[in-house]
Amino acid sequence: MQSDSPIVGAIEAGGTKFVCAVGSGPGELMRAREQFATGSDPHLLLAEVVGWFRAQESRFGPMAALGIASFGPVDLDERSASYGRITTTPKQGWRDTDVVGPLRRAFPGLPIGFDTDVNGAALGEGRWGAARGLDDFIYITVGTGIGGGGIARGRLLHGLVHPEMGHIPMPVLDGDRFEGACAIHGRCWEGLCAGPAIARRAGRPAEDLLPDDPVWDVTARYMAHALATLTYVLSPRRIILGGSVRKAGRLGQDAFLARTRAHLLQVLSGYIASPVLTPDGVAGFVVPPALGDDAGVCGAMALAHDALASRRGTA
Amino acid sequence: MQSDSPIVGAIEAGGTKFVCAVGSGPGELMRAREQFATGSDPHLLLAEVVGWFRAQESRFGPMAALGIASFGPVDLDERSASYGRITTTPKQGWRDTDVVGPLRRAFPGLPIGFDTDVNGAALGEGRWGAARGLDDFIYITVGTGIGGGGIARGRLLHGLVHPEMGHIPMPVLDGDRFEGACAIHGRCWEGLCAGPAIARRAGRPAEDLLPDDPVWDVTARYMAHALATLTYVLSPRRIILGGSVRKAGRLGQDAFLARTRAHLLQVLSGYIASPVLTPDGVAGFVVPPALGDDAGVCGAMALAHDALASRRGTA
Repeated sequence: MQSDSPIVGAIEAGGTKFVCAVGSGPGELMRAREQFATGSDPHLLLAEVVGWFRAQESRFGPMAALGIASFGPVDLDERSASYGRITTTPKQGWRDTDVVGPLRRAFPGLPIGFDTDVNGAALGEGRWGAARGLDDFIYITVGTGIGGGGIARGRLLHGLVHPEMGHIPMPVLDGDRFEGACAIHGRCWEGLCAGPAIARRAGRPAEDLLPDDPVWDVTARYMAHALATLTYVLSPRRIILGGSVRKAGRLGQDAFLARTRAHLLQVLSGYIASPVLTPDGVAGFVVPPALGDDAGVCGAMALAHDALASRRGTA
Repeated sequence: MQSDSPIVGAIEAGGTKFVCAVGSGPGELMRAREQFATGSDPHLLLAEVVGWFRAQESRFGPMAALGIASFGPVDLDERSASYGRITTTPKQGWRDTDVVGPLRRAFPGLPIGFDTDVNGAALGEGRWGAARGLDDFIYITVGTGIGGGGIARGRLLHGLVHPEMGHIPMPVLDGDRFEGACAIHGRCWEGLCAGPAIARRAGRPAEDLLPDDPVWDVTARYMAHALATLTYVLSPRRIILGGSVRKAGRLGQDAFLARTRAHLLQVLSGYIASPVLTPDGVAGFVVPPALGDDAGVCGAMALAHDALASRRGTA
């Protein structure tokens, strides 16, 4: 990305906070950044966000486009009447909330890109981070919940709605009697590996677990089964693992990822022949985000750049 | 597809038989069709196949392109030295077999499309069958084994290798002690729902089971868990279920699909809001192939048409 790329606006719309930025890319290309508590009044929050972007435009000049990477479920179908909305979320105040509409009205004519938070993060990592040059990869976030997005043959995964990878059914490890923590599915991936699941299994928050607590290993083993599923279904060239859980508190990210990778090779049992699915190669297959906690807001910037290119007919 | 479409050649390269055809499409657009036992001597078989296509060219004129939809694993990466090969198959005589090379040498300059059998079938169903007009869908075959291919945002899934959907890890249904029939993974999808798994669980071939045999229901329930996984990971607009198992012997295809769909809705528990994931809509979400047992060879024809369009720069 050249430093003379246009200045765009970016919103990472999360369930806890909205991270907003203006700039042309990550790091020093990001000119300004602010965050706002999501709260339960979308009308109020979006007005605040609009005000912040107007203030940035008076400092840096007009934005060339805006990108929004949002928590969901969202409607991504541009032919749909509810395009640009957060739809069936249980989050108080946010059900059936039009996110794109108020921004379109505030900035008439501005190209606006809109996608899920995890698809946004995938796009950001593909543009500037851990998936540069790859046409097929997945971005997973494992934190309070689990979500996944990705790119297949160079295009973001959409479809009927959009992927909801956190809710895949899971096997039972020998002797494991934990009933899972997902309110809807019990023992789905999110019900076994998200932060609240780890806390419920261990009886205390993940960050309080000692490095040798067996809960870390059982979590890594379930992670491996889920990553094997994604590998079999989508055949990604790389899986980027974001979110807070992979930082693994006192155990640490490196140790947690190393265990997850070793278990993944065991689950795959050599079935898929590839140099990256070997003890020497797998550290390049399951990786942390290169943009760190900025993957989401950078992804929103990438969505903005793509919306601009699409408007210009160069995408 | 117009009836004045060019005549192309098609090979559905299966582990048991190679189905070859020339024509421009399915049904009456297929001018000739022949099948050959796969055997254990690829050199001999491919010479026979070449001879058959030459004979058809003398009847119908030169083929404009050739499509090959092959059993795998295969190398689909055109930049790879082993592009066009069947790679690590356990099938006797076929490991590391170049399939595209001999055909390229026999028909110099002919555009040749090459993909997996299930990606081919997906493409065929998208062009002429049960997925016309859809950009995001999956084709599954459940027979001696389980394979899956698909299209996301209009493009066939490739990636690191290609999908191997039959080997996803599976949950355990309450009280089920069956250890699974997959030689590598035991209780993967293939190890629970393919023909040999059903036969091992029941103690006799699937076609001998009575309609009320409980093995049908447990198979449909596991199918539902696998289809839920695919729905969460890829968000397809439709899943096409091919292969012999869905015909379900004396139970019948309609009853087996109806049970699978009902269990699928139960597994999803309403998490994904869509009109097709409701009791009224789900019969349009999980469907049999419209091309029936011709999905594969028609898919190879579609691969040929696409290779021709790509050569002409119109794809």
